[in-house]
Amino acid sequence: MLDDVKNQSPHHVVIVGGGFGGLYAAKALGRAPVKVTLIDKRNFHLFQPLLYQVATGTLSPADISSPLRAIVNNYKNTTVQMGEVIDINPQEGKLILSNEELSYDSLIIATGVSHHYFGNDEWAEAAPGLKTVEDALEIRRRIFLAFEAAEKEANPEKRRAWLTFVVIGGGPTGVELAGAIAELAYTTLKEDFRNIDTAEAQVLLLEGMDRILPPYPPELSAKANDSLEHLGVTVRTNTRVTNIENNVVSLSCGDRMEEIPAQTILWAAGVKASGLGKALAERTGAELDRAGRVMVEPDLSVAGHPNIFVIGDLANFSHQDEKPLPGVAPVAIQQGQYVANLLKRRLKDKTLPPFRYRDYGSLAVIGRNSAIMNLNFLRLSGFPAWLIWVFVHIYYLIEFDNKLVVLLQWGWNYFTRKRGARLITGEGAIPISESKETNDSRNVLKV
Amino acid sequence: MLDDVKNQSPHHVVIVGGGFGGLYAAKALGRAPVKVTLIDKRNFHLFQPLLYQVATGTLSPADISSPLRAIVNNYKNTTVQMGEVIDINPQEGKLILSNEELSYDSLIIATGVSHHYFGNDEWAEAAPGLKTVEDALEIRRRIFLAFEAAEKEANPEKRRAWLTFVVIGGGPTGVELAGAIAELAYTTLKEDFRNIDTAEAQVLLLEGMDRILPPYPPELSAKANDSLEHLGVTVRTNTRVTNIENNVVSLSCGDRMEEIPAQTILWAAGVKASGLGKALAERTGAELDRAGRVMVEPDLSVAGHPNIFVIGDLANFSHQDEKPLPGVAPVAIQQGQYVANLLKRRLKDKTLPPFRYRDYGSLAVIGRNSAIMNLNFLRLSGFPAWLIWVFVHIYYLIEFDNKLVVLLQWGWNYFTRKRGARLITGEGAIPISESKETNDSRNVLKV
Repeated sequence: MLDDVKNQSPHHVVIVGGGFGGLYAAKALGRAPVKVTLIDKRNFHLFQPLLYQVATGTLSPADISSPLRAIVNNYKNTTVQMGEVIDINPQEGKLILSNEELSYDSLIIATGVSHHYFGNDEWAEAAPGLKTVEDALEIRRRIFLAFEAAEKEANPEKRRAWLTFVVIGGGPTGVELAGAIAELAYTTLKEDFRNIDTAEAQVLLLEGMDRILPPYPPELSAKANDSLEHLGVTVRTNTRVTNIENNVVSLSCGDRMEEIPAQTILWAAGVKASGLGKALAERTGAELDRAGRVMVEPDLSVAGHPNIFVIGDLANFSHQDEKPLPGVAPVAIQQGQYVANLLKRRLKDKTLPPFRYRDYGSLAVIGRNSAIMNLNFLRLSGFPAWLIWVFVHIYYLIEFDNKLVVLLQWGWNYFTRKRGARLITGEGAIPISESKETNDSRNVLKV
Repeated sequence: MLDDVKNQSPHHVVIVGGGFGGLYAAKALGRAPVKVTLIDKRNFHLFQPLLYQVATGTLSPADISSPLRAIVNNYKNTTVQMGEVIDINPQEGKLILSNEELSYDSLIIATGVSHHYFGNDEWAEAAPGLKTVEDALEIRRRIFLAFEAAEKEANPEKRRAWLTFVVIGGGPTGVELAGAIAELAYTTLKEDFRNIDTAEAQVLLLEGMDRILPPYPPELSAKANDSLEHLGVTVRTNTRVTNIENNVVSLSCGDRMEEIPAQTILWAAGVKASGLGKALAERTGAELDRAGRVMVEPDLSVAGHPNIFVIGDLANFSHQDEKPLPGVAPVAIQQGQYVANLLKRRLKDKTLPPFRYRDYGSLAVIGRNSAIMNLNFLRLSGFPAWLIWVFVHIYYLIEFDNKLVVLLQWGWNYFTRKRGARLITGEGAIPISESKETNDSRNVLKV
C-alpha cells in the first residue's frame, strides 16, 4: 500500500513541530522500520502546561523544557532538524524550508497555535500572551517591574495603575495566571517592599462568557471562582474588552462601560492556528475553521491526502455531533500516538479504526494548593485536586527528561512560599522612567 | 564623630551595587542603628562564579540568582531600590539617579567591572564576554546554535568553522568555559547529532602570558593545563589576538601569525571598571588605575572623603609593596564586611585598623570532576579539589537563598552527564540562514 514496501529506502515520515503531538508521534515511531525527521523551530520541547509558572517566577524555562535531540537520541531512525517550514508541495511530496527542501512519504503537521487578538493585533504589545519561553520571560519582567515601579511612584493614582493586574480570558491559562499573581502580591512579596503594601494590589480576571472555565461543568467553574476570590482575585464574567490603549483597559459589561487603568495586562483569551495551516489549505484545498485550524478526516488525515496528517491544536477534529476537541495536551498526545500506529499498520497493509479521543478528565490549578478536577466519574476541587494536579504534571514532565529536580523545587517553594525565579531580565525599554545611558550600559537594564 | 550621633534621624548608609561586596556590607549593617539603602540596576544578586554554567547549559539563571529584596527583607532598616546611579555630588552628599536624587551620610560604591577589549570595542559583537545573565544566555545560544548549524552545513570548511570554539583569555573564566565546552562536544552531545561527529569539534583556549591562570603557582597552572588537554582543549599560551573579523581570529605567537576561522568566539580576557568610578574620580579627585579602578585608602575610603568607600572589583587596593588584590568574590565580601564594621565603630566614636585581606586560597574548576586549589598550606588538583570546589560554592550559594536544589541539579547532571538547560532562546538574528517571515513569526526564533 505504501511506496516503500516496494522501494529500497525506508518510508520517510516527517513530523513538523516538537510539541506534545509531534513528540509522541516520534516516540511511537522510534522503533518502527521507518525513517523519521522531526523538524522544529526551537531546539527544545516546551512543557506548556507549566509555562505560567515561569511567567510568575516559580520555575525557570529549562525546568519545563527538554532538548529535542536528547529526547529522541536513542531512536537511531530519527533525525532532529532545527528549521522552519514555510510551505508544502503535496504534489511532489516536499516540504519547503527557509533554505532547503525536504521530501516526505508521510507528513505529520503539529505546529499548534499562537495568540489571537480577534482583529485587534495592536493590543499585542500592551497585552502579551503566553505561548513561548520568551513570552513567559516578558510577562515575568512586566509583573516584577510593576511592583518595583509602584514602590517608586509617589502619585497614588499612578501607583494604583502599577498595582493593577488585568488578566483577559477565563480559561485555564487565565485562571492559573491570575491565581499565581494574587499569591505573589498577597503572600510572596508581602515583606519585600517598604513604600507600598503589595496586598493593595488588584488582580482582575475578565471573562466574556457567564462563567470562568466554560468547558468545565458549571459546579467546578463555581468552585474555581470561589477559590480565586478567596485568593484575592476579582473575577468578572460577562465582561468583554472593547479596547486596550495607553495602559487602560476598556470594558463593556451588558450596557455598562468601564475603564480600568492598569500597567500590566495579560492576554489569555484567544488562539489562532499557526501559519502552516493556511499554506496547507491553499495547497491541498483542506478546509479551515474560523480560528484557522485544519478540518481533518476521521483518521486525522487531510481530505484527499491520506499521507498528510494534522494533529494537536492545529487540527479541528469533531466526533460525530460533538464540538471540536479542545486544544489540550492529552488530545495532542493521543493523536500523535494514533497517527504513528496508523502508519505502522499501513506498512503492513493493515488499517486502523477512526481516531477516538479517550477523555480521562481535565484539571486546572488555581493557586498554591487548590485546583479543580473533572474526571468522568469524579469531580474534585481544593487540595486533593491540587495534589493530583501536581502528580499528573510531574509524571508527564519526567516522561521525557527525568526532571525530578522540578518536583523538589516545587516542594521547596510550596513550604517556603518562595519564588526564586523572580528575575527581571532582558533588554529593551523599561517603562519605569527615561534614563540616560552611561558608559557600561550595554548589558544594563535601564531603570 | 558622625553627624547623626547629634541628629535625630539615623545615619544613612547608601550602598550602590548588589554584588558580593555590596550585599555583604548590607548584611553586616542589617542590625546596626543605621538606615541602609541598597541600590542596584537589577532586582537580583548574581552568583557570578557559576555564570559559566549558565552559559554552557547546566544551570538556569534563577539557579544562581537571588532577589535582592528577598535577601534583605528581614532587615527592617534596609530599603532596596532598583535604579541606576549616574553621578555623585560629594559636596552635598547626594547621589544622582536617572530620575531622582538621594542623600547619603556614608556611601559604599560596589558597582564592579565589565568587559574590556583593550581598545577594540568592535570585537564585542563577535566575541561576547561573560558578566551578566543576558551575556550567559547569548553565549549559550551561540554555542548550541553552532552545533545545529554544523549539522546542516554541507561544506566541510564551513562546518569546521561552526565546530571551532575559541576562548580568549586563560584566567578562571576562560578555563571554566573552555573545559565546559569541551565536555559538551566530547561527551554530552555525542549521541545527539546524525550528520556531524561532535567529537571533531575544536576548543581552543588562548592566553597571552606564558601559562594559563597566571595568578596561581606555576605547578597548578601546569596541572590545569594537563587537565584541559585531557578534556580535549587545545591550550595556546604566549598567543595574542591581533584581530577578530568575519568570524576569523587572527593570532600572533612570537613571530608567527595565524588565522583561525571560528563561528564561536568568547571573550574572557579583560575587564574595565564600571562608569561610576570615572564619575567618582571627576567629583572627588580620586586616582584611577589603568583599568579605571579607584585607588583607595587603607580603610577603603576615597582620599579626602572619609565617608565614601569603594569596594570589590571597582577598588584598587594594594597592601604595602604588593600587587592590587584580585577581582574575586572573597576580596569583595571581606571588604564589604570591613566597611560595615568600620561604620558601626565610627557610630560609637571608635576606629578600626586598616583593611587586611585574609587569603584563604583560591580555586578554579576545569571540568566535570577536576579543579585546582591553592591554599596557603596546601595545593590540590583533580577530583579532591573539585569536590572542595563544589562544596565551597554551594556553601556560599545557600548563604543567601537556600538553593539546595542547585546541589541536587548538579548531582543529577554529574551522574547523568546531562545538561538540561540547553535552550536556544531569545530573539534577534540567528546566523544560520536567512529566513522568510511567516504569519506567526512574532515569537519565533528564525532559523
